[in-house]
Amino acid sequence: MKAAILTIGDEILIGQVINTNAAFLSKKLFSAGVAVERVISLPDDEKEILKEFRSAFKKYDVVAVTGGLGPTHDDITKKCIVRFFRTKLREDKKVLKHIRSIFSRRNIRLTEASAMQAMMPAAAIALHNKLGTAPGILVDKGGKIFCAMPGIPYEMEYITEHGLIPYIAKKSRNSKRADTLVQKTLHTIGIPESQLAERIGAVGNIVRSGPGYSVKLAFLPSFYEVRLRIIIRALSVKIANSLLRESVKRIEEKAGRYIYSYDESPIQKAVGDILKKKKMTLSVAESCTGGLIASKITDIAGSSDYFTEAVVTYADRAKEKILGVKRSTLKKYGAVSEQTAIEMAEGIRKVSGSDFSISTTGIAGPSGAKPGKPIGLVWIGYADKNKSFAKKFIFTKERFRNKEIMSKMALETLRRELLSISN
Amino acid sequence: MKAAILTIGDEILIGQVINTNAAFLSKKLFSAGVAVERVISLPDDEKEILKEFRSAFKKYDVVAVTGGLGPTHDDITKKCIVRFFRTKLREDKKVLKHIRSIFSRRNIRLTEASAMQAMMPAAAIALHNKLGTAPGILVDKGGKIFCAMPGIPYEMEYITEHGLIPYIAKKSRNSKRADTLVQKTLHTIGIPESQLAERIGAVGNIVRSGPGYSVKLAFLPSFYEVRLRIIIRALSVKIANSLLRESVKRIEEKAGRYIYSYDESPIQKAVGDILKKKKMTLSVAESCTGGLIASKITDIAGSSDYFTEAVVTYADRAKEKILGVKRSTLKKYGAVSEQTAIEMAEGIRKVSGSDFSISTTGIAGPSGAKPGKPIGLVWIGYADKNKSFAKKFIFTKERFRNKEIMSKMALETLRRELLSISN
Repeated sequence: MKAAILTIGDEILIGQVINTNAAFLSKKLFSAGVAVERVISLPDDEKEILKEFRSAFKKYDVVAVTGGLGPTHDDITKKCIVRFFRTKLREDKKVLKHIRSIFSRRNIRLTEASAMQAMMPAAAIALHNKLGTAPGILVDKGGKIFCAMPGIPYEMEYITEHGLIPYIAKKSRNSKRADTLVQKTLHTIGIPESQLAERIGAVGNIVRSGPGYSVKLAFLPSFYEVRLRIIIRALSVKIANSLLRESVKRIEEKAGRYIYSYDESPIQKAVGDILKKKKMTLSVAESCTGGLIASKITDIAGSSDYFTEAVVTYADRAKEKILGVKRSTLKKYGAVSEQTAIEMAEGIRKVSGSDFSISTTGIAGPSGAKPGKPIGLVWIGYADKNKSFAKKFIFTKERFRNKEIMSKMALETLRRELLSISN
Repeated sequence: MKAAILTIGDEILIGQVINTNAAFLSKKLFSAGVAVERVISLPDDEKEILKEFRSAFKKYDVVAVTGGLGPTHDDITKKCIVRFFRTKLREDKKVLKHIRSIFSRRNIRLTEASAMQAMMPAAAIALHNKLGTAPGILVDKGGKIFCAMPGIPYEMEYITEHGLIPYIAKKSRNSKRADTLVQKTLHTIGIPESQLAERIGAVGNIVRSGPGYSVKLAFLPSFYEVRLRIIIRALSVKIANSLLRESVKRIEEKAGRYIYSYDESPIQKAVGDILKKKKMTLSVAESCTGGLIASKITDIAGSSDYFTEAVVTYADRAKEKILGVKRSTLKKYGAVSEQTAIEMAEGIRKVSGSDFSISTTGIAGPSGAKPGKPIGLVWIGYADKNKSFAKKFIFTKERFRNKEIMSKMALETLRRELLSISN
């Protein structure tokens, strides 16, 4: 089945609200085997809404609509549905009872505008909205499904999960349609897209299709990271999963060591999982990353099991006093140097008594460059009980991006050491 | 002028990526007086892309496209542009030079696929992409603007701000349009929407309209923050700006002290500006916020002028050893307590020699609650040369949100002290 999502409301078109509803709906529909082929945001304008209703309901099996079902003057979706399906409104007693119960629980007088939300298009089924007053409005016509839901995210999510998706599942079981979709995204960091592509080689090895199945591979680059997304379409879940396993294996053979995540989990999760398994601890000394590494590590619940402490030593004085970086080192090589990075990593490891430590010292920008030390330069230090070293990278001219990628590459440096991955 | 935004890429249609690009573009186009009437997300499919190019370029004055300009096999936007405008590719020497410089700066071999990004449709102008290899592709034809940009957010943002928007501004100046739109958003934190509304009083004082002008005010609440957006429409920039100044003044009279930002700048910028002006320094001791406060502070360029250092003491041992929190305090009151928060703030102030310091100790979640100490509890500590104290807050059950709001409220606590704002 193919679908379009229509989101109605000016707030999206002026950029005031980010369209998270569409992402949620796309994910849920995808898991239910429905491929979304369009997401369209349109204004609170009757003519425009009717135009898109017509065009989408003609082209797609499922049309999911969000927004414009509230009680105020600018909510016109229901009116458009009535017009589009040439139907009338009639009171739905069950919905009215539910609305009354919400108002009495909140101890608020029921307004006429809210009572009106119990008026349903005669051609439609009301999908229960446990969390609000506007029900989902589902019309099943000519083998196609039209479903309008409120734009408030948690209400839309409730109706999607408890009304729309079960309805679609039931319908597709009855129609014995086969087509299964599965997908997986592999995350890599620190290898450019072009080199990764070269390494994986002729994608024909992975991308392929035949009767009843297809395997797609997409390279999704973002700031020093590349995600590899595999999408499989097949006649059964079993076949789809087997094709998926095979595709992942083919990629792993070529570039496995660059993959730190097989779901949406971040690099700090990968590092944390390894440390937990090894029952070992980590401490961090940051300069240019300014606390971002520590913040990433502590984003993971349970990180207190392996993370002991971090220090953010912006001032040279702090590098000396807390970390024991030698004054002579700072004088001779400067704060941004291999030697300082190493002494920072060794210093925090000593102070904290942790098994491993990482450090950063660099120039985040936008200013602060010195001869031989451009903006974007960073030394990432590492120390364990046997060795210590620092690696040099040069990133961008932008402070924010630099902090982000420097932090991630510090974590990736640790990951490669923990797994003994050579470069 | 009216616009459509087309975002190309399966990742949006399967819900893997939230369409933040469209929100950014909508905002920027809106500020440039261009009303976005459609946002359409479509798949990496040549036929579908061409169909939407045709339909959008017919209906709208501006068509902004993102995505599908990378160097791999699934990036087909450029191919579609060539076909749509019936043009050819030719090498752009300036773009090629830029691509070479990026690769040599990163010390990576230039691949053929990346060099291909210098091939531009002959009908197009290349918009410089300082942050990446794929330039923006702008075609100005029949009084209409078509502009394709990479999907990587910061690259798209750079090209929009430095290429597309200036181009539109120049074009609309030449066409002598009337109606001006200006807007400003005032940011507050730590005051509930209802209290803020009460304080501001009858909004009729601010919201008003007359011949050729209107002033709108919207309350935009989000997670412990409220933004106040003013939108002015007027016949000239001068009138619009004068109405804006007046509206801001009226709000300031009632609630000025709660406003920490008049643009999109974050709370750490407001705090940094005050410290810089006072020529005073700050240090931070974090537990539950895990480095996020330090990271926020160091997001601001030039923060090394006032920020000396931070420590993230997850382990109790580190609180004792680095900050000098008394063992007896930890034993008697626990790590999450008023006393510990105060000793942490005093401790980091002493270690660093800074003028001011803040601290956090709390339970970020999702587990770790103790009797009388629920998830979301935080003590925010403050110390200067004259006094120290700690304040208690209880936020949510969600780790990620807690870290965020705890960090912001710690910075807001400092801001209010620096400005002697009582609550």
